[in-house]
Amino acid sequence: MELLSAGNKKIKRIQALVRSAKDRREEGVYIAEGVRMYKEAPKKYLKEVYLTPEMLKEVGEPKVPYYAVSDEVFSKISDTKTPQGVLCVLERRKMGLTEVIEVPSDKSTEESLDKNSGKNTDKNAGKAPLILLLENIQDPGNLGTILRVGEAAGVTGIVMSRGCVDIYNPKVIRSTMGSVYRMKFTVCDDILEAVKRIKEKGIITYAAHLHGSLGFTEYDYTKPTCFFIGNEGNGLSEEITAMADKRLLIPMEGSVESLNAGIAAAVLSYEAHRQRF
Amino acid sequence: MELLSAGNKKIKRIQALVRSAKDRREEGVYIAEGVRMYKEAPKKYLKEVYLTPEMLKEVGEPKVPYYAVSDEVFSKISDTKTPQGVLCVLERRKMGLTEVIEVPSDKSTEESLDKNSGKNTDKNAGKAPLILLLENIQDPGNLGTILRVGEAAGVTGIVMSRGCVDIYNPKVIRSTMGSVYRMKFTVCDDILEAVKRIKEKGIITYAAHLHGSLGFTEYDYTKPTCFFIGNEGNGLSEEITAMADKRLLIPMEGSVESLNAGIAAAVLSYEAHRQRF
Repeated sequence: MELLSAGNKKIKRIQALVRSAKDRREEGVYIAEGVRMYKEAPKKYLKEVYLTPEMLKEVGEPKVPYYAVSDEVFSKISDTKTPQGVLCVLERRKMGLTEVIEVPSDKSTEESLDKNSGKNTDKNAGKAPLILLLENIQDPGNLGTILRVGEAAGVTGIVMSRGCVDIYNPKVIRSTMGSVYRMKFTVCDDILEAVKRIKEKGIITYAAHLHGSLGFTEYDYTKPTCFFIGNEGNGLSEEITAMADKRLLIPMEGSVESLNAGIAAAVLSYEAHRQRF
Repeated sequence: MELLSAGNKKIKRIQALVRSAKDRREEGVYIAEGVRMYKEAPKKYLKEVYLTPEMLKEVGEPKVPYYAVSDEVFSKISDTKTPQGVLCVLERRKMGLTEVIEVPSDKSTEESLDKNSGKNTDKNAGKAPLILLLENIQDPGNLGTILRVGEAAGVTGIVMSRGCVDIYNPKVIRSTMGSVYRMKFTVCDDILEAVKRIKEKGIITYAAHLHGSLGFTEYDYTKPTCFFIGNEGNGLSEEITAMADKRLLIPMEGSVESLNAGIAAAVLSYEAHRQRF
């Protein structure tokens, strides 16, 4: 079996894709590392696989172009301290705001239609939208956690401001534990315009705010719902808070002054889940 | 003003305390860095302060022994990439299991009695215990988050197995955002014995489990409550799960297989909060 050397152009390209948001954006791809991320990768978007000979034996031959590399070379393309020995290049899903904030009612979009059964595979089909709108979330682990807990709690789509950390950052991808493949999301250059369109769809918007008027358990989230979640340091901007239909408060005992964005998203999403399921 | 040099014994000692759990344990102290951690440090436990001349001007003279160091030397004792210029040495609170799982009913312990007013300053006084029992939580950020969200949600005490990451790890301390000063906690060599004693107190124990029999919103947490939370990779051990009065399930939609320990703690604690407050 031929192994790619560290100096190979393909290896140089992967290193650039791991490191640089610009390179990833220009190619329209992203990198996902690890066995789980490989196994769960949607076939439609999986473009290339890089793996060690040992991992190749373990997972079998990928059905897309793949390249074997030694452990040593793999450690040079890996973003982790203890590489698992498999890394995928995936094409980005192209998804606009409309698709992210709508929930298919029945037969639905091509994307979510299973080719064999003809059934809708979007597990949220028929539900009222439950949207998280994230303003300038900076921490990759937080963003990854939000995608994961969002999927778990039945969130139907995530809308991000351009100021959020790159969702295709390898650390974000890893910390989603595969949710990035399944959650609908989009990044908006004009987040205020996005809020306007969300409201026009009849979705009720809630700003999570330290000076919220009512505790978060007091509202009805069985209706179409969108939670605005701000960045930890500064909270939500005034502009976006002003556009929300309601302000909700996550009550805090003791001397705690704020919760991190991932925790806030978890608590709000699971309250919606409690009411909905 | 005299500045300590990088070679000074005191500086060497701080470096050792930042780095080594053993050194911290042997001295019975821990390190807390940053302006907020300094300002919120309980006077009773604050032993020494190290700070830059600039920070000294900003926060004024500490009322305990303090040492000025240059920015350069400070960066050598700091555990962060962008040091704020103030670091405290604190004595550990000594707290046994009994104290952690009990909630003062009225006049209470010396610790929580305000010297001026004579009133109980333990904000949870009079409440039914709400305990988190953590088995082998490994990630420092997760543990810190659990203390913080626990305080926010009205958790009255945290019991940890010896296999948890050192709660006095500087990264844990920082990520508690001061909750480590206020939350009651203890580390148990024999966690099963601790569970036994918790149950003997009439506290109802719940194992958060993938095969829980009922969703977590179905139980009554207004009574004395203890949630068992396992480590992310392996979940709760069989031994500890078997000892729980009930198994609860955090339902997960989509293809999510687990939630991280911090998120699980947040969701459970805030459900208890919803029922209690």
